[in-house]
Amino acid sequence: MTLAEIESNPSFIYQEANYQPGRSWRTWLIGRPLATADAPHQAIGKFVGLAVFSSDAMSSVAYGPQEMMLVLAAAGAAGLAYAVPLAIGIVVLLTILTVSYEQTIHAYPGGGGAYIVARDNLGELPAQTAGAALLTDYILTVAVSISSGVAQITSAFPNLFPYRVEIAVALVLFIMLINLRGVKESGAIFAAPTYLFLGLAFITVIVGMARFLTGNLGVVVDPPPLELTHGAQALALFLLLRAFASGTTSLTGVEAISNCITAFREPKSRNAGATLIWMSLILGSLLLGITFLARQIGAVPSDIGETVISQLARTAYGGRGVIYLATLVSTTLILIMAANTSFADFPRLGALHAGDGFLPKQLMYKGSRLVFSRGIMALALISSALIILFKASVSALIPLYAIGVFLSFTLSQTGMARRWSRVGHLKAGEEIKDPGSTLRYEQGWQTKLVINAVGAVCTFIVMIVFAVTKFRDGAWIIVLLVPVLVFTFFRIHHHYKRLAKQLSLDEYGAPSRVGRHRVIMPISGVHRGSLAGLAYARALSSDVTAVYVALDPVEAEKVKHKWETWGDGVRLVVLDSPYRLLIEPLLAYIQQIDALRQPNEIISIIVPQFVPKHWWANALHAQTALMLRMALLFKRGVVITEVPYQVD
Amino acid sequence: MTLAEIESNPSFIYQEANYQPGRSWRTWLIGRPLATADAPHQAIGKFVGLAVFSSDAMSSVAYGPQEMMLVLAAAGAAGLAYAVPLAIGIVVLLTILTVSYEQTIHAYPGGGGAYIVARDNLGELPAQTAGAALLTDYILTVAVSISSGVAQITSAFPNLFPYRVEIAVALVLFIMLINLRGVKESGAIFAAPTYLFLGLAFITVIVGMARFLTGNLGVVVDPPPLELTHGAQALALFLLLRAFASGTTSLTGVEAISNCITAFREPKSRNAGATLIWMSLILGSLLLGITFLARQIGAVPSDIGETVISQLARTAYGGRGVIYLATLVSTTLILIMAANTSFADFPRLGALHAGDGFLPKQLMYKGSRLVFSRGIMALALISSALIILFKASVSALIPLYAIGVFLSFTLSQTGMARRWSRVGHLKAGEEIKDPGSTLRYEQGWQTKLVINAVGAVCTFIVMIVFAVTKFRDGAWIIVLLVPVLVFTFFRIHHHYKRLAKQLSLDEYGAPSRVGRHRVIMPISGVHRGSLAGLAYARALSSDVTAVYVALDPVEAEKVKHKWETWGDGVRLVVLDSPYRLLIEPLLAYIQQIDALRQPNEIISIIVPQFVPKHWWANALHAQTALMLRMALLFKRGVVITEVPYQVD
Repeated sequence: MTLAEIESNPSFIYQEANYQPGRSWRTWLIGRPLATADAPHQAIGKFVGLAVFSSDAMSSVAYGPQEMMLVLAAAGAAGLAYAVPLAIGIVVLLTILTVSYEQTIHAYPGGGGAYIVARDNLGELPAQTAGAALLTDYILTVAVSISSGVAQITSAFPNLFPYRVEIAVALVLFIMLINLRGVKESGAIFAAPTYLFLGLAFITVIVGMARFLTGNLGVVVDPPPLELTHGAQALALFLLLRAFASGTTSLTGVEAISNCITAFREPKSRNAGATLIWMSLILGSLLLGITFLARQIGAVPSDIGETVISQLARTAYGGRGVIYLATLVSTTLILIMAANTSFADFPRLGALHAGDGFLPKQLMYKGSRLVFSRGIMALALISSALIILFKASVSALIPLYAIGVFLSFTLSQTGMARRWSRVGHLKAGEEIKDPGSTLRYEQGWQTKLVINAVGAVCTFIVMIVFAVTKFRDGAWIIVLLVPVLVFTFFRIHHHYKRLAKQLSLDEYGAPSRVGRHRVIMPISGVHRGSLAGLAYARALSSDVTAVYVALDPVEAEKVKHKWETWGDGVRLVVLDSPYRLLIEPLLAYIQQIDALRQPNEIISIIVPQFVPKHWWANALHAQTALMLRMALLFKRGVVITEVPYQVD
Repeated sequence: MTLAEIESNPSFIYQEANYQPGRSWRTWLIGRPLATADAPHQAIGKFVGLAVFSSDAMSSVAYGPQEMMLVLAAAGAAGLAYAVPLAIGIVVLLTILTVSYEQTIHAYPGGGGAYIVARDNLGELPAQTAGAALLTDYILTVAVSISSGVAQITSAFPNLFPYRVEIAVALVLFIMLINLRGVKESGAIFAAPTYLFLGLAFITVIVGMARFLTGNLGVVVDPPPLELTHGAQALALFLLLRAFASGTTSLTGVEAISNCITAFREPKSRNAGATLIWMSLILGSLLLGITFLARQIGAVPSDIGETVISQLARTAYGGRGVIYLATLVSTTLILIMAANTSFADFPRLGALHAGDGFLPKQLMYKGSRLVFSRGIMALALISSALIILFKASVSALIPLYAIGVFLSFTLSQTGMARRWSRVGHLKAGEEIKDPGSTLRYEQGWQTKLVINAVGAVCTFIVMIVFAVTKFRDGAWIIVLLVPVLVFTFFRIHHHYKRLAKQLSLDEYGAPSRVGRHRVIMPISGVHRGSLAGLAYARALSSDVTAVYVALDPVEAEKVKHKWETWGDGVRLVVLDSPYRLLIEPLLAYIQQIDALRQPNEIISIIVPQFVPKHWWANALHAQTALMLRMALLFKRGVVITEVPYQVD
C-alpha cells in the first residue's frame, strides 16, 4: 500500500495477517482468533439443554445429602434419623422453586436471571444486590464443585488425598483454558458426561433399592471414622435447622435454565420450561433416593475421608469394581461440568453489570476467542484462592455457599410478584416495555402473584435460617461481603456517570484554541540525547527553555559553556540546588511558570530519555521523566513528553 | 517574582522554603535537609578515632573465640585443649596484619582501602574483585554483629530468644535511620560505649585472672547443653584448620582505620598509625584473655544457648549481678557500633565504585542529609534479608563471613608489595602520581616489600583454608557470589562506557532539523477529552490524523458523524477491527506510516488520557496509552505523548 492510500483510506481494515507473531503462544494455548462475524447462533433442544444447564443443580446431590448428614451426625443415631424427613422438606422447597421459576421462564423469554428481574421490577439497589449475591455464588460454585469432585477422586484413590489442593487448582485452571478457547461445540461435550452420570446414579439407586427390598443390601464395610466438627451435640431445633440449611445447598443451580432461555430452540419458553420440570424431577428423586439408601447402609458422612456417594456405590455394587469406579468418575465429571457452568455465567453477568456501569467496562470486552476473557480469568483466580484458603474442604466452604443463592432467589421471586401486581393494574391492550420483558394484562395474575410471593417468602426464610445457623462457621463472610460489593458497584457507577457528564459535549462551546505553547526541557547535560530532545522541542514551538539543575557548580559551568556552542540559540536556565535535589527544583520552577500561565496557554515538558537496549540497564539511570510525570499528572494544562533516545 | 524575572534569571536558586510539604514525614524521621555547604570538616584525635574505627575489630571478640571453640568441641576435651594455641596463632596473624597495614597508612595518607590500593597498583580486575569482596563483607558484618548482639541479649534474658529475628531486624532498621540522619555529632556518641565495653571487658578478664591465680575461679555453673553441628569428630588437622578459620573472624575490621585516615587530625598518618597499633594491642590481649579464661572455667560454646562471654562474665563475677548485666549490655552496644561502621563504609565504597562507573550512578547521589541514602537503605535491606534467612544464627553466618575480608587483605597487601617494587625502580627525584598516592623513591623499600609480601601470602593462605574447610557450610555462596558480582560490575561499566561514547558530541555534525512533523491521535470517541487532545495536537503541527478503532460498526458511524461537527476539519481514519483488538490495529497502522517515513520526519502519537481524581479509578479505564508506550518505546523517531484530561 502506498502512503497516500493508507492516509486517504477512510477504513483501514486490520488483517489477520498483521497478527503479532509474539502472540503465537496465546494462539497455541487458546486457539486462533475468531472474527466477530464468527459468533455462533446455534440453538439447542431439550435433550442437550438439560445436559448443558442442569449440571450445577444435579451435581449437588454429590455433596448436599452428605453435608446434611454430617451436621445430624453430631446428635448421633437420633439425629441421623431425621435425614429422610429433612430431605423430603428440601424436595418440597424444590417444588415451590420449580413452580415459581416456571412462571419466570414464560414471563422473561429473553432470559430472566435474578439481576434482570430485580432491575426491571424492584430498582437498582435490589438488582445490584442480586448481582452481587450471584457473582459470589458463582465463585463458590466453582470452589465447592471442584472440591467435591476431588473428594470423589480421593475416595476412590485415597493416596491422592495429600495432593487434593493441587489437583483442585489444576482442574480450575484447566476449565479456565477450555473456556478461554470458547465453547462453540460444547453441546455434545456436555451431553455425554451428564447422561452418563444420570444413568449411573439411577442404576446405583435402583440396584440399592432392589437389594434393600430383597433384604440383602447390608451395611457399609469399613466406613470412614466419624469426625464431628462441632463435637457431640444434643438433638435440638437449632441442629435440625442447621442440617436443613446444609441440605439446601442441593438446590443451588435450579435457576440456571431461567438465565439462558434464548439458547433453546423455538418455542424457547416452552422448551426451557419443560427442561426445568425434568431437571427438578430427576434432582428430587436422586436426592430422596440417595439420602434414604445412605441411611439404610449406615453410611458415615465424612469430610476428609470417603464420600457418601462412594460408600453408597461400593455397598450397592458389593465392592470396588468397574461400575463403582465408573460411578465415581462420572460424579467427578458432572461436578467439573457444574464448575464449568459458572465459567459461562459469571463472565456474562459481569459483562451485564459492566454494561450498566456498575463494574469496570473492560469486563464487557470480548477477547480474541469471542468470550469475556477477563471475567473468566478473574473467576479462576478468585475460586483458586478460595480452594487454597479452605484447603479444598467442602464442609468448610458450604457455610459460605447458599446464602447468596437464596438471596437471589428471594429477590427474583419478589420481583416476579411485583411484576404480577403491575400486570394486574394494566388495562387491556396497554403495554409496558421493560428492558427485559413486555408487560401486558393477563388473566389469573392473582394466582401467579401468590405463587411467586410464596416462593419469595420460603426462600427468604431459608436464607435467614442459613445465615443464622451457619453465621459463625463462615456465613458472616458473605453477610459482610455482599453489602461491601453493592457499595463498590455504586461507587463505580457514580464514577462512570460523573465522567460521562464531564466528557459530554452538551453545553460545550467551541473548543478553545491553544494560544502560547511554552516548552520546557530539563536536560542532564549537553550530549546527543539532549540535542535530539532539543530538535523535537523546536519542532513543537519557537518558545523553548532548556533547564539544567546544578548539583555541582563546576559541572554547571561546563554545561553553560557547551550550551553556547550546541544550544541552537535556545535559552538555558540553570537551577541551583543546594540540597542536591533533582526533581524538587524542577517542580518549583515549573510551578512558578505555571502560576503565571494565561488561560489558553499550554506548557509542555519535554524530557529527553535514554532507552537502553536491555531492560535491566534502566536501573542504571535516574528515572527523572517518570518522577516528573507522577508529580505533574494532576496539573491542568501541563503535558509531559519523553523523547526517547535509543541507545544500542 | 514576576514571570520576566523567573525567565530571565539565569540562576534560579531552589530555596528551602519551596520544600514540598508532603515530605514532612521524612523531615520528622531523618531531620531537616542539609545544604551541601553544611558538610562537616571536623577532624578527630586518636582517643575518639580508636572508638569510631575499631568497634568492628574489637567487637569480634564476642563471637570469634566462641565460634572457634564450637568447632573444637566436636573433638571433645582433646579438641578444646587446642583453643589457646590457636588463639596465639591468630594473634600472630594479627601482628603481621598490623605491621602490613601500618605501611599502607603511611603510603596512602588520603585513605588506603583495598579497592584504592588494588586499583592503583594492580589494575581494574583486582580492584573490582577487592571491592566486591568488601561490599559482601560489610553486609555480613552487619548480619553477624547484630546476630551476636542479640545473642548476648538473649543470654541475659533467655525468654527473648523466640523473638531474636524480630529484635535483630528492628536493630538494623534503627541503625539505618540513625545513618540516614547523618553522623555529624557522632564522635562522642561512639566514644562512650566503646570505652565502656573496653573497660568492662578488661575488668572481666582481670577479675577472672585474679581469681584464677588465687585458685578460686571455679567452673561455670549450669552451662548450656553441648550442641554439635557436625556431630562428634576425631581430632584431625582438618578440624583444627576449620577451628582456626572460625577464629580468624576476630580479625575482621582490622583494615577499617586504613580506609579513613583523612578523618584524623594532622599529622593524619601518624595519628592513624598509632591508633591502629593501640587497637591491635587491645584486640590481641582480649582475644587471648577471653580464650584462656573460657577454657579454665570450662565454658561450653553454644549457638542457641548462652554465649561464652555471658558464661565468662557470670563466672568471673560469681553470678548474674549488675556488673554482669553491664558487661553484656556493653558487649551488645559495641556489636551494634560494629554494624554501624559498615553503614558508613558500605555506602562510601558503593559511591566510589559508582564514580568509576562500575555500579549504578545513583549510588553517588547524596541525600538531603548529606549521606549516601541509597547505599544505606540497600545495606539495611540485604543484611535484614540475611538475618531472616539465617534465623539470626551467628554459627550459620560465620562460614560466609571471613573469605571476603581475607580476599581483600590479600589484594591490598599484594598491591602494596607491587607498589614498593615500583618505588624501588624510581630514580631519585622522579615521581608518579597515582589517583590515590604519590610514589617517590624511598630508602629501605626492599624491607617494606618483604613485609607486605609476607602479609599477602599469609592472608592468602588463610583465605584458602577458610574457603576449603567451610566450603560446604556456606563458604561456597561467597566463592560463587564474588565472581558474579565482579562480572556484573564490568557489565555495568561496559554499559556506561558505550553510552558515553554514543552520547559524545565528538564527530557529531550539526543537529538535524525536523522536517515533516506528523501527529497521529488515537481517540476512544468524540468527547471533551478527545477534543482537549485535538486542541493540543493542532498546536504541535498542522499535519494531524485522528484514528478511531471500530469494535462495533454502529458506534463507528456515530463517531464519524460527531467528528464532522467537532473534528475541526482534521482527517479521521477508522480502523476496522474484526478481532475486537484495540492496540494491534493501531500499531499496524502506525507501523505502515512509519515504514514510509522520511529521514528527518518525526511522528508524534498523541493519546488523550483521563486522569481520575482517585487512583483506584484507573482500574476502570483501559490503559491504552501505557500499552502503546510499551510497544513503541524502541521505535526511532516516534514520540508518544499522553495529553492528560483531568476528571474531578
